[in-house]
Amino acid sequence: MATKIKIICVGKTSEPFVREGIKLYEQRIKHFTGIQIVELPDVKAGSVQNKLYVKEKEMLAVSKHINPEDTLILLDENGTTYNSLEFASFIEKHTSTSRSLVFIIGGAYGFSELLYQKAKHKLSLSKLTYTHQLVRVIFLEQLYRAFTIIRNIPYHNQ
Amino acid sequence: MATKIKIICVGKTSEPFVREGIKLYEQRIKHFTGIQIVELPDVKAGSVQNKLYVKEKEMLAVSKHINPEDTLILLDENGTTYNSLEFASFIEKHTSTSRSLVFIIGGAYGFSELLYQKAKHKLSLSKLTYTHQLVRVIFLEQLYRAFTIIRNIPYHNQ
Repeated sequence: MATKIKIICVGKTSEPFVREGIKLYEQRIKHFTGIQIVELPDVKAGSVQNKLYVKEKEMLAVSKHINPEDTLILLDENGTTYNSLEFASFIEKHTSTSRSLVFIIGGAYGFSELLYQKAKHKLSLSKLTYTHQLVRVIFLEQLYRAFTIIRNIPYHNQ
Repeated sequence: MATKIKIICVGKTSEPFVREGIKLYEQRIKHFTGIQIVELPDVKAGSVQNKLYVKEKEMLAVSKHINPEDTLILLDENGTTYNSLEFASFIEKHTSTSRSLVFIIGGAYGFSELLYQKAKHKLSLSKLTYTHQLVRVIFLEQLYRAFTIIRNIPYHNQ
């Protein structure tokens, strides 16, 4: 079964080096699977600075890119932490059982309750807090690494 | 006490996007402290592929950049994992007690026994295995983040 992977990020990629890193790993992942990266604009709170409002508006934009058959996985600081081999097993399992994997990298205020309810899994990359920009590159590199582990291609532990 | 921070990396930075990321955070860190990044060439094992030989030769090169008064900290997968606030406390403590903090990001084969013995601490950024290239950017961003937390400058949790 050919699985498509979609990564939805809240906030445009503003750092040029992050954009380059995303491009690099996106191209490498394309050798293994279909991948689409959706970047949604930040919601500007203006002078109101209402976090709940910003979060809900961001999540409304995210929900437009989600279909009922998608397996949703949130990148969340309270999620499960895996090592790279465990993460590869996670990817292998889900690419063999789901036609569409959707990973969501939230904005500064996190996810809505509705999205938490809909999501099948929560993943955490580290106990450390990364920028929402850098997370994209780190996650894509892990995804690429996972496919090299699954396919037994020399890359991991080289 | 003005602490100088030195980061010794084994292997040249080959990815242009990584080089850009390093430059960005290095410049930002310079607002807070003296920082020097030393990149040592990879040791080519040739056809021998003797891991121990490569490791010891790399460590010999590293040792030339270490002085007796340095506080040595290894970035090691079996090291302590902190969250960003804990890491900031770690940096605050060591910048107030040591004149020279040296972080070492090893090569593919890790560190020599001698370096493990000399090192005061081992830090791990994540359970995930990152590339030796990407680790540099991730670590520098955390170091920058640590200083913004110590100085109470808005950046973390924005």
